Amino acid sequence: MGWGDSGLAISLGVANFHKTFAMMSRQPALIERYCRPDSHDVGCWAVTEPDHGSDSLTVTEKHFSDPAIKANCIARKDGDFYVINGQKSAWVSNGTIATVAALFCTIDGDEGFKGGGVAVVDLTLPGVTKGKPLNKLGQRALNQGEIFFDNVRIPAAYMAVGKDRYAAIVESILTGANASMGTTFVGVARAAYEMALDYAKQRVQGGVPIIEHQSVRSRLFKMFTQVEAARSLVRRVSYYNATNPPLIQYSIASKTFATNTAFEVSSAALQIFGGVGLTKEFPIEKLMRDARASMIEDGCNELLGLVGGSRL
Amino acid sequence: MGWGDSGLAISLGVANFHKTFAMMSRQPALIERYCRPDSHDVGCWAVTEPDHGSDSLTVTEKHFSDPAIKANCIARKDGDFYVINGQKSAWVSNGTIATVAALFCTIDGDEGFKGGGVAVVDLTLPGVTKGKPLNKLGQRALNQGEIFFDNVRIPAAYMAVGKDRYAAIVESILTGANASMGTTFVGVARAAYEMALDYAKQRVQGGVPIIEHQSVRSRLFKMFTQVEAARSLVRRVSYYNATNPPLIQYSIASKTFATNTAFEVSSAALQIFGGVGLTKEFPIEKLMRDARASMIEDGCNELLGLVGGSRL
Amino acid sequence: MGWGDSGLAISLGVANFHKTFAMMSRQPALIERYCRPDSHDVGCWAVTEPDHGSDSLTVTEKHFSDPAIKANCIARKDGDFYVINGQKSAWVSNGTIATVAALFCTIDGDEGFKGGGVAVVDLTLPGVTKGKPLNKLGQRALNQGEIFFDNVRIPAAYMAVGKDRYAAIVESILTGANASMGTTFVGVARAAYEMALDYAKQRVQGGVPIIEHQSVRSRLFKMFTQVEAARSLVRRVSYYNATNPPLIQYSIASKTFATNTAFEVSSAALQIFGGVGLTKEFPIEKLMRDARASMIEDGCNELLGLVGGSRL
Amino acid sequence: MGWGDSGLAISLGVANFHKTFAMMSRQPALIERYCRPDSHDVGCWAVTEPDHGSDSLTVTEKHFSDPAIKANCIARKDGDFYVINGQKSAWVSNGTIATVAALFCTIDGDEGFKGGGVAVVDLTLPGVTKGKPLNKLGQRALNQGEIFFDNVRIPAAYMAVGKDRYAAIVESILTGANASMGTTFVGVARAAYEMALDYAKQRVQGGVPIIEHQSVRSRLFKMFTQVEAARSLVRRVSYYNATNPPLIQYSIASKTFATNTAFEVSSAALQIFGGVGLTKEFPIEKLMRDARASMIEDGCNELLGLVGGSRL
Repeated sequence: MGWGDSGLAISLGVANFHKTFAMMSRQPALIERYCRPDSHDVGCWAVTEPDHGSDSLTVTEKHFSDPAIKANCIARKDGDFYVINGQKSAWVSNGTIATVAALFCTIDGDEGFKGGGVAVVDLTLPGVTKGKPLNKLGQRALNQGEIFFDNVRIPAAYMAVGKDRYAAIVESILTGANASMGTTFVGVARAAYEMALDYAKQRVQGGVPIIEHQSVRSRLFKMFTQVEAARSLVRRVSYYNATNPPLIQYSIASKTFATNTAFEVSSAALQIFGGVGLTKEFPIEKLMRDARASMIEDGCNELLGLVGGSRL
Repeated sequence: MGWGDSGLAISLGVANFHKTFAMMSRQPALIERYCRPDSHDVGCWAVTEPDHGSDSLTVTEKHFSDPAIKANCIARKDGDFYVINGQKSAWVSNGTIATVAALFCTIDGDEGFKGGGVAVVDLTLPGVTKGKPLNKLGQRALNQGEIFFDNVRIPAAYMAVGKDRYAAIVESILTGANASMGTTFVGVARAAYEMALDYAKQRVQGGVPIIEHQSVRSRLFKMFTQVEAARSLVRRVSYYNATNPPLIQYSIASKTFATNTAFEVSSAALQIFGGVGLTKEFPIEKLMRDARASMIEDGCNELLGLVGGSRL
Repeated sequence: MGWGDSGLAISLGVANFHKTFAMMSRQPALIERYCRPDSHDVGCWAVTEPDHGSDSLTVTEKHFSDPAIKANCIARKDGDFYVINGQKSAWVSNGTIATVAALFCTIDGDEGFKGGGVAVVDLTLPGVTKGKPLNKLGQRALNQGEIFFDNVRIPAAYMAVGKDRYAAIVESILTGANASMGTTFVGVARAAYEMALDYAKQRVQGGVPIIEHQSVRSRLFKMFTQVEAARSLVRRVSYYNATNPPLIQYSIASKTFATNTAFEVSSAALQIFGGVGLTKEFPIEKLMRDARASMIEDGCNELLGLVGGSRL
Repeated sequence: MGWGDSGLAISLGVANFHKTFAMMSRQPALIERYCRPDSHDVGCWAVTEPDHGSDSLTVTEKHFSDPAIKANCIARKDGDFYVINGQKSAWVSNGTIATVAALFCTIDGDEGFKGGGVAVVDLTLPGVTKGKPLNKLGQRALNQGEIFFDNVRIPAAYMAVGKDRYAAIVESILTGANASMGTTFVGVARAAYEMALDYAKQRVQGGVPIIEHQSVRSRLFKMFTQVEAARSLVRRVSYYNATNPPLIQYSIASKTFATNTAFEVSSAALQIFGGVGLTKEFPIEKLMRDARASMIEDGCNELLGLVGGSRL
């Protein structure tokens, strides 16, 4: 899918995200409503907040349980309901088109981000408003935008994951999401390499196809090697995680290596196109913009490296 | 100037380019027309062609004098005139807004690109048409676009540089242009570093400004070091070239190092901004796009390295 | 094996190299003599020459069949014998301890390196002399040294591979050798990473084990990722080559990626040890020296990239 | 000097190190004894300890003043004397050949490393013993080794720098030493580049000097550029520090950039030599070993980056 359009791949991946939590809640009402085959709901992953990007994902770091760090979106228990107030950041994937959210929010208390929960929230409820779609560098096919909550009431049973399991679920979701980013962006890297290879066999400079120049041929072979290394890693991690209890350090290795590779390879591919690579005539500059975004998405790569490093 | 907007800096630099050649021609008519203080002409640098990017600049390579390589734009002598036919590529800086061109064209014959000349061409003459402004990744403030010539007649005296001096002039112009690219893109690198430093002192994650995290601080110091190294090199080369016969290998070192640094530093800066760096809220993603283009502009960096390598 | 000692691994790998060619010759006498289970012969791979390192391996380049390039070691047909004269370079693995050589030599004629053959040569024959073991940076456990031939006569039947199959055999041997280098040097990379990880959990600076400092943890995670990517690639290539007609571009990708990784990871590991890493107290500086040599061994990585690039 | 032998350059630089502190003490007896023109004393810089490498130099970090971190070498006031006990690490430059030390030691108390002093210590005094010269990867011309102190008594006046000025002096010395490392290792980088350039013009492969192959030429030009960038930075920093109050962040930029460049360039140069570069036939592998050590010497580059980063 990433070979085609990474933004669309992510959008489709997230569109069913709420179903995972509906199932996890074991509430027949939730399952009935959201998991029927004819459901047309569009889901989204609402986790980061304006003041908390990395903060909200780094389960291995001390500040994840620091009560002094105040969340931007809080759910407060009120009898058989939770009342939600605050907002999620402009980075919520499918944010402005979703009809239901898998909302990762902090439950009122003094446990910091660790004391959170995952609620399935109907985004047509009173009190929900949305921002504008984000205007951004890459993955423009992926809708992203803010969601605001003003005294939004949901049945307590819709809090699919409570404080007790929250940290473990965040880790598990990050493990799955990172592995999935790995497979998507190997596709981007491969698309960029293949485009550059085709172009290098056709474009003539110095009287010969440019692939015959050592400088170009060396770079293409390096790109080929990087793509094959990333594919091999991503496949091995996917296979491992599918047949064992998934390990976050492997997923992070897969995600960071594949996204860094996608950026390096797409930039190297663009360089082989030369000037025309900077224009809209070929989609190579789009691949580079998509890849650049992926190095920050679902945890910036440096931060993920610190989380993964805690498990070595 | 590069600190502000690199595309605009280049556009302004090129706007007077034709004056250099008017002076060089020693023709009073040309000098009188284009070099008066009240002249409002806008110049452009018309050198690359659709089929010849690198081909047209690599004075040190064999194929520069290969008659089998056919140019896209040819000037043919016809009595006291030259008749120009063909086109220049979409990369002509100021191409669609210029009123006069410093046209680097091939003079009919069998000497390949080496047998070229530089003409000062009034772009309001009959037979001149222009393409659309190029829609491109970076340096969008810099107008670029194609110019077409259909039997355009100019007085022979307007061919300011003939075959005898052409290769030397191309080398000299490339030497000057590359040094100038060096100074411009050190400005871009510095702007990106300064923006990231300011942001890292303000943005709080984990309860402290992110510059206090080792990961961020290390990266900022690396960026600082890269910027200072590039500044030092660019200054030393500028000073050398201003006080000695300029050497192309130094100019190329300056250009390639500064533009590569601008790209690496602006991408590293963007990473420090995280998600918000991908949006239009800060100009950091624009700096990265501008820098990316500079690695191809005025000769792609790998090719320039081969030209420079011939002079070691 | 590479995890333990890469030089020894290569020495043992090469020790049976002549048996491959004895089998290939289909000569009962050769097979009987060299392939019996109780044979104590030590083999060697004699291919590079003082004036021809890369020249002798680059089957995809034009100069491989350039008769103007003169080999340092020539076999001349003389009735039922070949007479060998000249020398092989100091890089012959097991060169000074071998009792039999798989000799890749040029057969008298005008086909350049392409017109070569592989002979199984008894190194106790009259006319064979040897140089001193090479004193070198890394892989010191691997014996290497020159072999000289002065009118050495071998039965014509001992020329196991003739001109017709020579280029194909060189390619096939390079394909096998490169894949094997890949597996060996992933072992080196892994050994270096594991040593650094152990040390970082024990060494205390700033009052805590250094792995708790972000700078060290980030670097360890990067090393982990590089090792896992290299392992994944090397395994996939080995599996592919074992179950399909082997492809040289995959073997080269495996070799160049694994050896570059081994060098980067061992140097990064050394940095984590700090000063003590430069001493003989830990074998980390030895791993770096071994890895450095591997980037040149069996074809320098840049050159292999050009060969591999010809098959994209 | 670094162009010739970096280890020797550092040894000579350190040999007069004690004179700086003798002058600083303003004690006529010390000045008279150590600063006379006919003095034959050999000095050394004794700062790091077995348990404290980075700890002892990072003036900008919190743990520099952490009393819980215990030094390995302590000076205790005893009337008009200091009594010194403990040891300095094997990394003391000129350690086993010095006759006098500039001893950076911790003065008994509860201020951690911040509460230190610099004493001029006669190494022929009773109680001083020395270890063996260190057997190490690079800079083998530079003697380094441990010094042990067992109740060594020195006049109190020989403590040239006391607690009040200690942190400032460590910073100032580090500022000077780092700038000096910068100039030395630019010399190493330049020597490696020049050697590779000469070799590439002579070594023939594929029928032409290897500099004519694009792959080799590109790499040489990159090395040239890196060397020129490092030279420019180092000169500008030296000039700045000589004409202004020296700034540690500039010295660190100079040291880290120059030493990283020396390692990259010497490794790239070695690659151009191919196999012969791994032998003792050319000193290129020695330059790489010397350069590798410099990335740890006088503060490992990552740690220096954190110190420098605190001053941005």
